Amino acid sequence: MKRVYNFSAGPSMLPLEVLEKAQAELLCYGDCGMSVMEMSHRTPEFEAILNDAEAALRKLLDVPQNYKILFLQGGASTQFASVPLNLLSEHKCADYIVSGQFSKKAYLEAKKYGDIAIAASSAGATPTFSTVPETKRSDFRPDADYVHMCFNNTIYGTKFHYIPDTGNIPLVADMSSCIISEPIDVSKFALIYAGAQKNVAPAGLTLVIVREDLVGNARPDTPAMLDYKEMVENNSMYNTPPCFAIYMAKLVFEWILSIGGLEEMKRRNEKKASLLYDYLDNQSYYTAPVDKKCRSMMNVVFVTGDAELDKKFAKEASAAGLKNLKGHRSVGGMRASIYNAMPYEGVEALVAFMKKFASENPKLDA
Amino acid sequence: MKRVYNFSAGPSMLPLEVLEKAQAELLCYGDCGMSVMEMSHRTPEFEAILNDAEAALRKLLDVPQNYKILFLQGGASTQFASVPLNLLSEHKCADYIVSGQFSKKAYLEAKKYGDIAIAASSAGATPTFSTVPETKRSDFRPDADYVHMCFNNTIYGTKFHYIPDTGNIPLVADMSSCIISEPIDVSKFALIYAGAQKNVAPAGLTLVIVREDLVGNARPDTPAMLDYKEMVENNSMYNTPPCFAIYMAKLVFEWILSIGGLEEMKRRNEKKASLLYDYLDNQSYYTAPVDKKCRSMMNVVFVTGDAELDKKFAKEASAAGLKNLKGHRSVGGMRASIYNAMPYEGVEALVAFMKKFASENPKLDA
Repeated sequence: MKRVYNFSAGPSMLPLEVLEKAQAELLCYGDCGMSVMEMSHRTPEFEAILNDAEAALRKLLDVPQNYKILFLQGGASTQFASVPLNLLSEHKCADYIVSGQFSKKAYLEAKKYGDIAIAASSAGATPTFSTVPETKRSDFRPDADYVHMCFNNTIYGTKFHYIPDTGNIPLVADMSSCIISEPIDVSKFALIYAGAQKNVAPAGLTLVIVREDLVGNARPDTPAMLDYKEMVENNSMYNTPPCFAIYMAKLVFEWILSIGGLEEMKRRNEKKASLLYDYLDNQSYYTAPVDKKCRSMMNVVFVTGDAELDKKFAKEASAAGLKNLKGHRSVGGMRASIYNAMPYEGVEALVAFMKKFASENPKLDA
Repeated sequence: MKRVYNFSAGPSMLPLEVLEKAQAELLCYGDCGMSVMEMSHRTPEFEAILNDAEAALRKLLDVPQNYKILFLQGGASTQFASVPLNLLSEHKCADYIVSGQFSKKAYLEAKKYGDIAIAASSAGATPTFSTVPETKRSDFRPDADYVHMCFNNTIYGTKFHYIPDTGNIPLVADMSSCIISEPIDVSKFALIYAGAQKNVAPAGLTLVIVREDLVGNARPDTPAMLDYKEMVENNSMYNTPPCFAIYMAKLVFEWILSIGGLEEMKRRNEKKASLLYDYLDNQSYYTAPVDKKCRSMMNVVFVTGDAELDKKFAKEASAAGLKNLKGHRSVGGMRASIYNAMPYEGVEALVAFMKKFASENPKLDA
């Protein structure tokens, strides 16, 4: 069976080498006579998998020793509640930067728990959220418990081109759609979280990287499973963790280390994104609506300007083995998600298809 | 590589046929050119998987039409909070039957949210929790919002031999370690939940079967991901669900349907449990400490009466390919978890080993 190029925004492609290794080990991991899926999380074999996964991620991102790494369930949407439940102090005040639908959802969820304000928003851009807000330190309330942002906006294809200066206020970032796509300076953030289903592993795993001093201050009525302290004290095993997804994450981390770590990953991702953006910038059939300075390296949005043509494009691309190129329903057009596991050849095939489609489908007003 | 008999309490064995099918499809599901792990949850292919999983479970358990089936994350431990957050009314009162460590944990978590009482407990049994409490309707407060129980107690090897009569009070049951092991009358319960990692699928999936009238009454500050209404309205896809675990659950459900449904599953499980309990009842080397009328069909606890011998047993059994027979650290001795996927031959091999071990290791005081 021929594998396709899958441009889905998430869940999304996994490295073929990783899938092949998982397949080979699916009935029997090492010499232990069982699948990772069947393995008690209390065995030395699984504890080694968990510890190896953590060590590999710590190495990849150069995570400082005063940060804990957690392997949780529930996705970023659960963190939308966990963050205020754990980080809001008694006076309960936090500021949100709204740069897309997910940061807006995070803001609305946090409002259940305290005095939450929008410090900056790019909702008013044309088209909406086609850029990220510029912020300065004075945009944030000095007594805010934290500032929340979403670093890469999957739906709109934008990414922060800068790290907001929040002074002493802890900065919290949802990095679901950009984590481990390039090096980041973890120490600039107080907490980073990410759903795994884009760059890390199959859906069902959430990474949390949290500075130690932020752990242990949850509201008393915080569900135990959402309390970072419980998760830290139990090394992510307060209950049975999503073992197989953690194993897959370990394989993905080790794959990145094997090719040269995040510097090499960034080089490959930049090369893929440049191929696509350079083509977009040098023709007039398609438009890339995103502010150039904050273009996402992971999610590339483009439109023909004609909804019917967009529809035809997605349909014919799919038939040609280029899957899931339809843009998010709130944006329309096309979106090519080119995460870590998308090979360069996939983007080459996409650009070739775009050229062919443009020549075969002249616009009526052209 | 030879596969072993894995008696782990969870995660635990999966049917070999299911693992083999998952392995064959791991790089390419059907003709879609990608793994289920890479598939967007918004595609028709994944929606079919989710719908098929739900339909198969509904058929297996004969779930009435006024019950919703949810595929969630976070394990039973998350439900320990979700249940009170969703089911407690304004006067906030619920009764718990405590029959083991997990029902006690559920009780302690619920106490964060209201007036929670222990209606009955078997903690005082000798050994502790070696039986389940007998209850009658008058044990429960008439104004309780619900009564909570754990139907099968994994650690202690007990199972309720009766369904508590709670009158009009909704009965909530944690069935993590016995769901789909035999037919149950779902209509006797208001809500059933179960972590998947014993009888259903790999860890990372939680089943919730909830009567419709209990949905939509969550506290305003309930995290959206713990609010049954959000999950029902979004067909378990408020955010990206644990797609691969749902796919595995579907394969397991279909495997049970293929062998004859839960009547046949029960027959096989009874046959396995009888083999082991009959042996235990007809010798004097090992003791089964559990009250006979509430013996679990899934988790069989036994001891030699000598901690050193118990340790030797688990070690030598492991070397003989009978894995994870060590009892829970709070109970000691041995525990053989013989869930749906454990073949009869595994229990035969265990009994043969028990006989051999007894003959080779005479007790000093015998």
